Amino acid sequence: MPGSMENSPLYKIANPESIAFFGASNNPSAMGTSILNSIRALGFTGRLYPVHPKEAQVQGLEAFGAVADLPQVPDLAVLVLPTAIVAETLDACGQKGIRHAIVVSGGFTEIGAAGAQLQQALENVAQKHGIRFLGPNCTGIVNSHHRLNSTFLPYDIRPGFIGMASQSGSFITQMFDYLGRYGLGYSTGFSVGNEADIDLVDCLQYLARCPHTRVIALYIESIRRGREFIETARAIVPHKPIVAYYVGGSEEGRRAGFSHTGALAGPDRLYTGIFRQSGVIRADSITELFDFCWVLGTCPIPAGKEVIIQTHSGGPGAVAADACGRSGLKLPALDADTLARLAPFVPHTGSCHNPIDLTFTRNPLDYYLKIPEILLESPSCRSVLTYFLVPSKTVRQSLELMGVAADQLESETEQVLATIAEAIAALPAKHGKPLVGFSFRNHEDPFARMLYALGLPVLPDPGRAARALAALVAYRRLKMKIEKSGSN
Amino acid sequence: MPGSMENSPLYKIANPESIAFFGASNNPSAMGTSILNSIRALGFTGRLYPVHPKEAQVQGLEAFGAVADLPQVPDLAVLVLPTAIVAETLDACGQKGIRHAIVVSGGFTEIGAAGAQLQQALENVAQKHGIRFLGPNCTGIVNSHHRLNSTFLPYDIRPGFIGMASQSGSFITQMFDYLGRYGLGYSTGFSVGNEADIDLVDCLQYLARCPHTRVIALYIESIRRGREFIETARAIVPHKPIVAYYVGGSEEGRRAGFSHTGALAGPDRLYTGIFRQSGVIRADSITELFDFCWVLGTCPIPAGKEVIIQTHSGGPGAVAADACGRSGLKLPALDADTLARLAPFVPHTGSCHNPIDLTFTRNPLDYYLKIPEILLESPSCRSVLTYFLVPSKTVRQSLELMGVAADQLESETEQVLATIAEAIAALPAKHGKPLVGFSFRNHEDPFARMLYALGLPVLPDPGRAARALAALVAYRRLKMKIEKSGSN
Repeated sequence: MPGSMENSPLYKIANPESIAFFGASNNPSAMGTSILNSIRALGFTGRLYPVHPKEAQVQGLEAFGAVADLPQVPDLAVLVLPTAIVAETLDACGQKGIRHAIVVSGGFTEIGAAGAQLQQALENVAQKHGIRFLGPNCTGIVNSHHRLNSTFLPYDIRPGFIGMASQSGSFITQMFDYLGRYGLGYSTGFSVGNEADIDLVDCLQYLARCPHTRVIALYIESIRRGREFIETARAIVPHKPIVAYYVGGSEEGRRAGFSHTGALAGPDRLYTGIFRQSGVIRADSITELFDFCWVLGTCPIPAGKEVIIQTHSGGPGAVAADACGRSGLKLPALDADTLARLAPFVPHTGSCHNPIDLTFTRNPLDYYLKIPEILLESPSCRSVLTYFLVPSKTVRQSLELMGVAADQLESETEQVLATIAEAIAALPAKHGKPLVGFSFRNHEDPFARMLYALGLPVLPDPGRAARALAALVAYRRLKMKIEKSGSN
Repeated sequence: MPGSMENSPLYKIANPESIAFFGASNNPSAMGTSILNSIRALGFTGRLYPVHPKEAQVQGLEAFGAVADLPQVPDLAVLVLPTAIVAETLDACGQKGIRHAIVVSGGFTEIGAAGAQLQQALENVAQKHGIRFLGPNCTGIVNSHHRLNSTFLPYDIRPGFIGMASQSGSFITQMFDYLGRYGLGYSTGFSVGNEADIDLVDCLQYLARCPHTRVIALYIESIRRGREFIETARAIVPHKPIVAYYVGGSEEGRRAGFSHTGALAGPDRLYTGIFRQSGVIRADSITELFDFCWVLGTCPIPAGKEVIIQTHSGGPGAVAADACGRSGLKLPALDADTLARLAPFVPHTGSCHNPIDLTFTRNPLDYYLKIPEILLESPSCRSVLTYFLVPSKTVRQSLELMGVAADQLESETEQVLATIAEAIAALPAKHGKPLVGFSFRNHEDPFARMLYALGLPVLPDPGRAARALAALVAYRRLKMKIEKSGSN
């Protein structure tokens, strides 16, 4: 998508050098105070000006009695105030010369007619001054690469590559912990709230240009600018995948979405049409949304739907095959050359039908390095799906049998695992083909965490792994279709 | 199901007082040695007789040169031997008077015609002596309540209520870690292997009578005795739910299952028919199989499909509503009396449409105790689905603000959480209605672990929670249908 990120109305909102903050106090349990503390906790390096009618200091920072008193015109105002004084405060910001804002406060269209009047007043003030703003009724923004977190929960995970725009603030803030578990994180996450000014389409345009964003995630209760959404998405998809979860996929979800933000969602087939025209990949749940982002943001795009499954247990191989079948993936037979190269690694109890069931391997290095490499080199293979039984215990036992001293077992095991993890994580880029893992083991396992950190996805269920691989295959098709139609 | 567990051919296999063990040695990496160590690690209280042609001691236990030398006739023989000597060893066991065995060794029908001959020889020996046996080509059995684990991985989780029979040994052993994470475990798990003698139907009959088994789980690649399966299941379902995952639900799964055990699976519609006639609840994946068991084994049976969703975030409420809709559950409106009772707890930003979106609660005790109780008491409510944002942090902050000393914060927080967890976990039994949670938070969280230990299911995704609740609703229907037809 052409154009620079700096031209987006969201640029100063996501990358401010200075912030006027309304609503923090010395009451530690106030929402505004929590948000101010979040901003500081992530190490925001710009200037932060709390505005407070009475306090000289707020949370140890110098406070100002009014926005007019600030020593400069800040890039951004953040408002966490009672509904009744939001519009007048934004007006004061406008008079000061501020042109960007985040309105966290709720009590607008989402509560009915009285709130709608207040929102109209807010929009009028913004228009008068040319202020572009996010919200109201939102949790704000996290831009992990700019060390900015204006949500009320601490962003304590690493910067990531998922650019998100969400019509629920919860799916920004409440997913920090979730994403961090898999080594993932947001590049920038926007909670768009009531979208009085800035909406999903603006977020798409920003995230398309954001260099830290490899994949765009959308949580949608309703799309307000359908035509612009489709045009914008079509321009983006050839360069970056977009995944969306539309909660109105069922009647119950549609009604709940309405009760949440007051936005009237359309029938499911309307959204099916919008997504199909847009080239947007559709997820059926929040979990699936992030699974798809994980695989789309880390894996090469496969040239087709043929998957080779590698396991050392028949049952996990069969369930992975079933999961691939249910997701529309194909399991090709192996070619003769690949079979010959595999033969030395396959015991007589094993099977070289796809799934490749090794039953056991004498050396875990073969399972994690040599065998996947042979499979990735096979011309019949587009992707590899590997069952990860985490080998920590096996590695430790082998080292023990090799005579490693008890007090060095821990560090030696970790060293060996790190070597294996680095080698296996390098394979997909080397061969230009995806290698996706699945495991029923705990994601807290040290080996799993090493793989996550290195960007190798190991999903906690073969069905989730297969659906994510299918999304990757779908992305290739969607991208090619748009490129062919010449719309980009 | 009438009859006593003691009459089952599996009784002595699952509850032996003495075991002759073949295949363990002083080589620590041998499979037989691992299994012997597993048996001892779980604290098996019976006698254990390693049989070894050369060693006087095996892993510190007195060893015997031949089964004929044993000082008694053991209840059970466990064989982890090279394929070629399995039949002759079983013959010696028969001559000694042993009448029950587990044959772990592989290399039989699963590898083709040569193996099939060996399996026939094994069956002949067993028949000659009247020996009933599990396997061959299986990982054996875990009976956590009898402290017996004949699989090669340690059973280091608590005894549970899931009775499992599996045509893949992996889904016994490799799920210990998985189940333990959610406070679950097996009552008894059978790996049936090639089912040369004992099969799924025998396992069903045993598990139906096992007092520790609240729900039966099946992993199926093919059913050999279709008619007996249906009759047995129909007799069990009015008393205990049965959940099955059939891997041949897709063409790819069917082919992989064949390559795994050599059993020819039937077309999916045949299995759909079998499950429908049997009253068996069908799961679509391993994860779903255990999700269903979790909820079926811990929750009262709801009187209908009406669910009330409780959240304090609009997004999670909407996605839970969507998940319920996709699973065929209904979200009724609340009655006037319940609305009046809820009113004091709902701030003006909240919503009492179903989902109940509280947006926030001043006191976490209200969210976790008073509000679910009001909902469970509502006549329009059959089940409650609650969003759990784990409140550890909130509780700690409140305690800090109340002036609890820093060095007591940890223990006080834990105490408060334990009190909340115990109170909320008592609600379903008190009201005779299910209360199921969902959360995107880490299952390692202390509050989550307390709830798991108390038997309150909190699933890691609203879709999984909704599908499990729908399985509970389905169970009531299946049970009533069979009872009505008078087949039990």
